[in-house]
Amino acid sequence: MELLKKRILEDGVVIGKDILKVDSFLNHQIDVALFDEIGKAFKEYFKDKKIDKILTIEASGIGLACVVAQRFGCVPVVFAKKTSALNLSADVYHSEVYSFTKQRSYNVMVSKKYLHQGENILVIDDFLANGKAILGLSDIIDQAGATLQGVGIVIEKGFQGGGDEVRSMGIDLKSLAIVESMEDGKILFREEI
Amino acid sequence: MELLKKRILEDGVVIGKDILKVDSFLNHQIDVALFDEIGKAFKEYFKDKKIDKILTIEASGIGLACVVAQRFGCVPVVFAKKTSALNLSADVYHSEVYSFTKQRSYNVMVSKKYLHQGENILVIDDFLANGKAILGLSDIIDQAGATLQGVGIVIEKGFQGGGDEVRSMGIDLKSLAIVESMEDGKILFREEI
Repeated sequence: MELLKKRILEDGVVIGKDILKVDSFLNHQIDVALFDEIGKAFKEYFKDKKIDKILTIEASGIGLACVVAQRFGCVPVVFAKKTSALNLSADVYHSEVYSFTKQRSYNVMVSKKYLHQGENILVIDDFLANGKAILGLSDIIDQAGATLQGVGIVIEKGFQGGGDEVRSMGIDLKSLAIVESMEDGKILFREEI
Repeated sequence: MELLKKRILEDGVVIGKDILKVDSFLNHQIDVALFDEIGKAFKEYFKDKKIDKILTIEASGIGLACVVAQRFGCVPVVFAKKTSALNLSADVYHSEVYSFTKQRSYNVMVSKKYLHQGENILVIDDFLANGKAILGLSDIIDQAGATLQGVGIVIEKGFQGGGDEVRSMGIDLKSLAIVESMEDGKILFREEI
């Protein structure tokens, strides 16, 4: 998505070799008009899929998922909650996720009331790096007996390998920008095939 | 807002005397079409105010703020982050908030890059109970030299007094539903004047 890549080059801030800050438009301040363009792009890519519900993860995925949902006929959005609690109630689906950034595990959870057998789910999130959060959501969808129809990501850090791992599992993953490297502060995108 | 009150009566779950669960449409699963109606209602109420930016607080306010922003010409949304950290960097505005639910204080913070002197701010959030989070956001807006033009809340728990405290400070607060009591599991709304 050229508009997005241009914005990343203009406003993204590279810190070290693997941190890309885009909090001016994606995950602290939000450009709602850009979110709508992102929604259009996901709808175009997933136009042949039946989507009953969008699943995302708190916090910064929530705004994006709501705006994307408008392009899919205002299907319900469900956001998974993160918790460090070990004892989770029986009325939630949960999956353990290891965070490389924080170097510890946490649980993602979704109430059993809001994911059902047979539902077609689109997962939406702002970032994909190691892909562990997406695999956790995929696990929760499996537990519910629902079907993961696809994953839409705004920015994939391709060099961290999570996206390719997700693809190798047969999951239909669309990332609107894949950052291939950030050596010397210079952002290079993966060429689209 | 009659549509909202009807939905609260249909789908809200009262627990004890003061907990109202509306996670089927507001803060776990999200009804995006309802959010759009809520956005329309806030735009109608605040139609004479110039709004440059919408400020909300993670997590469940974010989706709402993005959909509401569309009704205000897609102004930027900024979401304040919650943190229990004591040492905050100098490049953020922050304010301490006491949580009655969790019986402890936390900090809300916003990067100084995303709130500026002279900006007209609309605060949007899903719930208002004791009002401490809203007062924290108001404090941050003051620190930035910006102007709080108004506060839009979906559900105010009127019996907890926070809304009236906010109004008594001269803040233009619009709550789309004010729950006056939940005795014996029965939800009663405050009559609008």
